[in-house]
Parts: sequence; structure tokens; C-alpha cells
Amino acid sequence: MNVYTADLLETIRRTSPLIHNITNYVVMNSSANILLAAGASPVMAHCQAEVEEMVSFAGALVLNIGTLQEDWVASMILAAKAANQKGIPVVLDPVGSGATRLRTEAVKRILRESRVTVLRGNASEIFSLQSADVKTKGVDSSLDFSDEMIEAAKAMASDLQCVVAISGAVDCITDGARVFRVANGHPLMTKVTGMGCGLSSIVGAFCAVDPSDPAKATAAAFGYYGLCGDLAVKVSDTPGSFAVAFVDQLYMVGRSEITQLLKLKQSA
Amino acid sequence: MNVYTADLLETIRRTSPLIHNITNYVVMNSSANILLAAGASPVMAHCQAEVEEMVSFAGALVLNIGTLQEDWVASMILAAKAANQKGIPVVLDPVGSGATRLRTEAVKRILRESRVTVLRGNASEIFSLQSADVKTKGVDSSLDFSDEMIEAAKAMASDLQCVVAISGAVDCITDGARVFRVANGHPLMTKVTGMGCGLSSIVGAFCAVDPSDPAKATAAAFGYYGLCGDLAVKVSDTPGSFAVAFVDQLYMVGRSEITQLLKLKQSA
Amino acid sequence: MNVYTADLLETIRRTSPLIHNITNYVVMNSSANILLAAGASPVMAHCQAEVEEMVSFAGALVLNIGTLQEDWVASMILAAKAANQKGIPVVLDPVGSGATRLRTEAVKRILRESRVTVLRGNASEIFSLQSADVKTKGVDSSLDFSDEMIEAAKAMASDLQCVVAISGAVDCITDGARVFRVANGHPLMTKVTGMGCGLSSIVGAFCAVDPSDPAKATAAAFGYYGLCGDLAVKVSDTPGSFAVAFVDQLYMVGRSEITQLLKLKQSA
Repeated sequence: MNVYTADLLETIRRTSPLIHNITNYVVMNSSANILLAAGASPVMAHCQAEVEEMVSFAGALVLNIGTLQEDWVASMILAAKAANQKGIPVVLDPVGSGATRLRTEAVKRILRESRVTVLRGNASEIFSLQSADVKTKGVDSSLDFSDEMIEAAKAMASDLQCVVAISGAVDCITDGARVFRVANGHPLMTKVTGMGCGLSSIVGAFCAVDPSDPAKATAAAFGYYGLCGDLAVKVSDTPGSFAVAFVDQLYMVGRSEITQLLKLKQSA
Repeated sequence: MNVYTADLLETIRRTSPLIHNITNYVVMNSSANILLAAGASPVMAHCQAEVEEMVSFAGALVLNIGTLQEDWVASMILAAKAANQKGIPVVLDPVGSGATRLRTEAVKRILRESRVTVLRGNASEIFSLQSADVKTKGVDSSLDFSDEMIEAAKAMASDLQCVVAISGAVDCITDGARVFRVANGHPLMTKVTGMGCGLSSIVGAFCAVDPSDPAKATAAAFGYYGLCGDLAVKVSDTPGSFAVAFVDQLYMVGRSEITQLLKLKQSA
Repeated sequence: MNVYTADLLETIRRTSPLIHNITNYVVMNSSANILLAAGASPVMAHCQAEVEEMVSFAGALVLNIGTLQEDWVASMILAAKAANQKGIPVVLDPVGSGATRLRTEAVKRILRESRVTVLRGNASEIFSLQSADVKTKGVDSSLDFSDEMIEAAKAMASDLQCVVAISGAVDCITDGARVFRVANGHPLMTKVTGMGCGLSSIVGAFCAVDPSDPAKATAAAFGYYGLCGDLAVKVSDTPGSFAVAFVDQLYMVGRSEITQLLKLKQSA
């Protein structure tokens, strides 16, 4: 996985895939900077009149339902259908799903009306889309995953026919068959807004350069991103300067750091 | 007041109250980071279809009329009524009130149709809501407050039955009876966008953990926030790195700095 | 040009002209901070109900079509007409023009229905508005300008009766008669989102303090902005901390740096 992750990152830097984001107002700037620092080309465009055209230039589409308005859901579905037709990966970040009906229903509708390649969120967001047998409490990304939760994630991935990627102290990425676990990343990342949303955009960039195996590409994205957090916290352990150092690390990290420091394991 | 301020800050850090912001596009990211650094949990949500549900999880609601659109006012009033019913504090930041009719009217409508707990702005914004006998000139936050202005603020607080909190070289917070004055803070804070808006969000966090005395909690919020500015300017006196250092200070400042460096006085 | 540039910058710092931006969500925060650091006063306001009133206080209007929605075009035209009537400069940044019909048509409509003072973008955006004889490939701001492209820019400026300002490795600013070339600036600026948009806002500030010669004022703005990039990259050559250092430089740079380090030439 380490060589694979380094290879994908180098491909991103060499080919600068255009990542089309329909994302929330809070993170439009930070997600663009995160993509640029990694070597990708971001574009933010949400108007129904242009999303299909914009997708035609893109290597991946990233949908994010933070600060949602109803008419944006229609744009997301239009864009996702165009991405499906073109055959590029679609990443969906269900920000706040489970908190309000608007958000939960929006995610369900997008999943119903288009094909999503990767669903990335924290445990409570992801399992809010599941039936009632998995109980979740609020937006808590700090919990470690029980075997029961991993089985639920696998079942969900099989059911939705997409990669399910859950951020946590140890991240869990599964396509229903394989499970990847990533132990990189630092709790200070939860003290900076938009870090999860930025990860979803980076997942888009990694999937854009290896659309043939989105589960593996997503795990690589998580590893790279978490590793940048690990390294940034050594520069600063307070959130303002940590956020700055994190973007610097996204730009600087290369093959040698990835080879030595990635904590990414695949299990059956 | 110093012990009280330190106590509230520790309560915010221990309980992470959810602060629901309906705020302007310019500051959504910075206000979220400011709340996170202080220890609170931010959420940004403005859609009429979800604001009432979101308020049901919140410890305070913060309304901010920058980059206003007409349909957002309806969302703000829906959210404020839900907050009133739930009994949580509502902070209103009248950004640009007095500059355009849209803004002045929006603030007046929110004040008329819901109960606002704290109205926080600079002098020209606040007094634009007053009758014509207090003349104001533009958006000037640097002026010190005359006795006449403090009397006008007290009258306004009594009249509106809310806390009136005015940012300036020395800040003035009043509930019509008591007046708190805060001498912390630095002029460089006016060279970073969204510093006033971020303060309104922090006022929300402090009021969330002491809803019983919003005037006192607001004064504590001003003291803490200004103190972080005082300390950040010692790290850097240029606005880019000052803004980063300010967020670091919000995260680092604790009981000892507050006890020693707060310049907060209550007068009759 | 060096003394002129330093003079305009000092006038901005002394008079703090209000720059009214109708700009995209990605850069609202960064453009506001860029204007503040330079010494200007930013306001972001896009609602049709207030843009004309807001223009009445402004020294320049900056329009930017990133993250475009259809109803924003009407606001931009309303604001531009008010600016025309008042006689203040209008800067138009055609972000993504050429990529989608929505954007290209929006720029053409604004140019048709109002008088634009300065059109600032990269080569592909600018020439997307030209007839088919200038072929452009994607959004590539790194190419140096051929003599043929400079002639095309001059023809366009004469045709549109506005200043055409094209960002590139060497920037080119022309009013159809004179050509200014600016060799300041650094490739790392393309790794931070919103740097071009921020420049358009700074062009607004420079034109606000010398509306009599917008081509010359625009060239001065490009020189100052690029010089801040040159100096910031000496502080840090990674994008997170570079972006912070850049804002610091906007605040710090003064007459001595401008006099010594500006690479700005005028040709016939």
C-alpha cells in the first residue's frame, strides 16, 4: 500500500486532475487550498446551468451537503448523473446526515438517483443512513470501531454498492469485501473546520488517478491525509498554526515520508 | 469577573456547546475555527427546512446579517423563534446596519418578531437602530464612547429588553442597568476580516454556558476575546500571521492569563 | 512607475477607499483580508435589494463570476450601472469564462449592459471572449505572451473600450494604446486559491485612488501584488505559510521595497 499511495500522489502532482466540488460555503476556500497543495486542480461550481458542462472536464466529482439548500440537491444529482455517464468517480460527504431530515433525505435521494463511488463521513453520519439497528449518538468522530460496526459498514457497502469510508481514531474503508484501516491522523484535526470535507476532496483526487480501484485509492488518500496531520502537529500543536502547517505538509510530503510513516493495513 | 470568565471558558471546553450560526459567507470558515479553538462546537445551517431542527440541538443561536439575502431573514426569524421557545440565548450581529435599508430593516424585523438576547456590533451599526437623536458617521469602530453614548446604549438595552454590546477601543456592554467596560483588544484586529463576527459567535458560546446572566457572560466573552488579541499581537503584528496566532491564543489562553490580564470593569 | 505605485499605495492606506465586491464564495474571506492588509475597506454585498445603495459609498466596484448563480448576474449589472452613473471604476474578473457557457455568456452580458473599466483574468479566460481566431487551451496562466497575443489584447481593449489585464509569468496590461508588462510574482501564487481574485480586488483599490488612468493604476496594482508574492516566497516556499506571509507582505511593503524591486515596464 505504501508504494501504491506514493505512486498515486505522484500521479496527482504530475497530471493535476480537475476535481469538481459542489460543497458547502464553510469549506470552499479550505478544500480548494487542500486540493491545490496536494497537486490537484479544484473547481467549485454548483449552478444547475453549468454543472454538467463542468463535469465534462473533471477527473472526479465531490458532493458535500453542508450548509445545504434544497436547490443544490438537484444540482448535485445532475452533476452526479453526468459523472456516471462519463465514468468518473463520485465522492459523497454526508455532512450532518442524521442531524436533520433535510440532510438525511438529501443523501438518500442522491444515493437513489445516481451512483456514488465513495461515501465518506464519520460514524454517526454514515450510520444515519442505515436501518435502525445501528444506533448512533450525535456527530462523534472520536470513537474507535467495534467489530460490529465494521460488519455494519461492510454490509452497507455491499448494499449500496459503493465504498464506505468512515473517519475515526482509526479510519475504516471498505467495499464490502476488503477492509482497509488507517491509523494515521491526529485529534487536533477535529479542532480545525473543514478537515473532513477536505479529506473527501482528496479522496476525489486519488480516485481520479485510479478509478479502477476506488476502495484502495480511498485508503491511500486517508493514509496520505492522516500522515500530513501527524507531521503538521510536530510543527505546531495549536489549531491556527497547525492548519497552516497541514497545508504545507500536503505540499511537501513525498515518497520517503509515505514509505516510512504510513499506518495503513488491509484485512479481509 | 476574572474568575467568572475563566470558569465560563472552562465550562465551554468541558461541555462543547453546539453554537448554531446563521451567518454571512465571508466569515463562515473563520467563525467556525474561532468557535472550535475556544472549545465550542459550531454548526452553520441556514435553510428554512432545517433551522428549527438544528436549533433543537444547540446551546445558542447566532444571527449575522452580512452578505444578506432576503430569504435568509425568514430563516433567521424561524430559528430565533425556535430558540426562544427552547429558552436558549440568541445573539444578533447587525453587520452593516445603517449602511443599506435592506440591512437596517432586517435587523428591525428580527428584533420585532423574535426575542434577541444580545445585540452586538460597532457603534454605528447599533445606533443605526436608534431614533435620530444619536447621530453616527459610517462604520467606525475606533471611537471611544462618550458618556452620552453609554447612556444611549443603556436606554436602548432597556427599550429592546436585551443586552447591547458595542465593540470599540474600549468595549461597552450593558443590560440597561449594569455597564461592563472591556479594555482588552488591539487595533490590528480591525485589519482581519470577520473578527467582529467571530466575537458574536464567541458571545453565543459564553451565553450558552451561562444563560442566566447574558450581560455578564457577554462581558466575559469580550474580555477573553480581546485578551487573545492582546497576546496574539505579541506573536505577530502583521495581519496574516496575527490572524493565525489569534486562533492559537483562543485555544491556549487559560485561567492564569485571564486572571492576570483581563481588563474588565463593571460600573453601575 | 515605481514612485507612482508607491504614491497610490500610500493614498489607499491614508484614505481607505471602500471597495464593493460582488464575488464568489471561495474567495470572499481571502479577498476581504487582502484588501484590509493593503489598507482598503472591503464590503461584500450581492443582494439586488442593496447593491445600488452600497455602490453609493464605494470607491470602486469589483465583479467576479466564480461560483456563479444566474440571479447574481442581474445584481452585478445593477451594481455596475450604479457605478457607471456615479463615475467609479468597475473591475470584472471573468473566472472560468470559456469553461462553461453560463460563465462566458455572463461576462458578455455584463460587458454589453454596463461599462467595465478593467477586465482582469488569465489568458484563456480573457481570450474566450474574443472571436475564434485566438485559440486558447484551458485555464493556463503560466504561458508567456507572444507578440501575437499582446496584439490581440490591444485589439480587445480598443474594441471593448476598457483596460485588458492578463495575468501570466509576465503580466500584460493594456488600454489599446499603451502596454504595461509586470515581471513580479511567483509560480507558488498559483498554488493558493483566490490569488487572482484577490488581485482583481486590489486593482479595484488602485483604480479607486486614481480613476483618471485605470491602465496605469492597474499596472501599479499588479506590480505591488506580484512584489508581495516575491517577498513572501522568501519567508516560505510552501503554500500554507506562503499564503499567510503574502498577507503580511501586503501590509508591510512600502515605498522602499517598491522603489527597489518593482519590475514594471511600459512600452508603446
